[in-house]
Amino acid sequence: MPHRYFTTEIGSGRAALTGPDAHHLADVMRGRVGDQVILCDANAVEYTGTITSVQPGRVEFSVSEGYPSAAEPSVEITLYAGYPKQGKLEDIIRHSVELGVHRVVPFFSRYCVAAPKKEEAKRERYARIAVEAAKQCGRGILPEVSLPLPDFASVCRELKDYDRAFFFYECGGSPLRTLLKEDKAVRRIALITGSEGGFAPEEADLAAAAGARTVGLGPRILRCETAPLAALAAVMTLTGNLE
Amino acid sequence: MPHRYFTTEIGSGRAALTGPDAHHLADVMRGRVGDQVILCDANAVEYTGTITSVQPGRVEFSVSEGYPSAAEPSVEITLYAGYPKQGKLEDIIRHSVELGVHRVVPFFSRYCVAAPKKEEAKRERYARIAVEAAKQCGRGILPEVSLPLPDFASVCRELKDYDRAFFFYECGGSPLRTLLKEDKAVRRIALITGSEGGFAPEEADLAAAAGARTVGLGPRILRCETAPLAALAAVMTLTGNLE
Repeated sequence: MPHRYFTTEIGSGRAALTGPDAHHLADVMRGRVGDQVILCDANAVEYTGTITSVQPGRVEFSVSEGYPSAAEPSVEITLYAGYPKQGKLEDIIRHSVELGVHRVVPFFSRYCVAAPKKEEAKRERYARIAVEAAKQCGRGILPEVSLPLPDFASVCRELKDYDRAFFFYECGGSPLRTLLKEDKAVRRIALITGSEGGFAPEEADLAAAAGARTVGLGPRILRCETAPLAALAAVMTLTGNLE
Repeated sequence: MPHRYFTTEIGSGRAALTGPDAHHLADVMRGRVGDQVILCDANAVEYTGTITSVQPGRVEFSVSEGYPSAAEPSVEITLYAGYPKQGKLEDIIRHSVELGVHRVVPFFSRYCVAAPKKEEAKRERYARIAVEAAKQCGRGILPEVSLPLPDFASVCRELKDYDRAFFFYECGGSPLRTLLKEDKAVRRIALITGSEGGFAPEEADLAAAAGARTVGLGPRILRCETAPLAALAAVMTLTGNLE
């Protein structure tokens, strides 16, 4: 299988890789004129690229007609994840990108143990982790990690932008199987999972008032790093995007 | 919510905790005569226990009639997981126990990068991790971690013990949604996921010959620590055990 690279320098039958990707292809993979790779525009379109020149720091290609990336799910999921302690958000990002998430938005809430600290710098690191995971698992887009929202009300204000919002509550709620059976035309979905401390009852009320459906993930207590993966895998399974 | 402990010393209306659990209840939680806790026999039966005596290293209880643990899923899933590198098996165990696994069986296979090393000692560590996870997430049993099987043929020999075996293959297969729709009376299920190197084609053939259904988990390449969680979450979702 030819190697796969993301590039934004693509159009009119030509494309280029620069920077670390050019170095990887030229020096690590020893790519030569005439070799083929897959190029992805990070907008869910892929191309077969044939190397036309290899220069220091730059590899150029002629490219085929674009075709839709097969790896993108039919639903566009934003994961709102309560900000966890330590490095757990990194694990959540890696797993979520593999499971097909579109965007990850951490947030602070009443029972969060973590507090905001150097979030601009951390966001760069999170974005790098998301890009690496997207490359490894063959995504057609580069999922974004947003700056954390300062409180749960800010999460709720964004929910109107989605076809459906599911609030995963440790106190239980409706089964996803039922909720997703109701309406198959859902495309933009928000999933909301809590941090170690879970949600305050008034946050559950806020979410419901903002139109989110309260959902349960079963009788076992899932850790804050397991719940988002279970939620994502469940939605992807039920919408036919994990098969 | 009262604290929850596992104990095997339970029967005839009486029960006892010893060792670290007795210390935890007596010295950390400051349990006193008359206080109530939930006791679980690790066999999916729970009891309300009322403390009748607190001695050094031993707490005794009178117990209510037993009731079935609500946390146990209706399916009994054994996860056969290709032995991964580094500490990844520990993460797989933690996540799987939360998602309701019954038993985890690591195995070595053709493309495994890890090699057997001090597996008896490691198994003790894995068992401790499973027990801790079971306590934290409120399981009614203590999921077992078996000693690793030496090769993939050994995995296949065990598959006859299950109602269904699903072989998750990176080259794709049938959708779980279809396979699980066919037969709702399935109880004992084996899930088989690979290590970093994935499976050799002859291993896929072996699994099929042993009666396993080959299953795909979608177009994205899942890491060996993500695939078991996605597989478990998918089966639990489709069988109504994640709601």
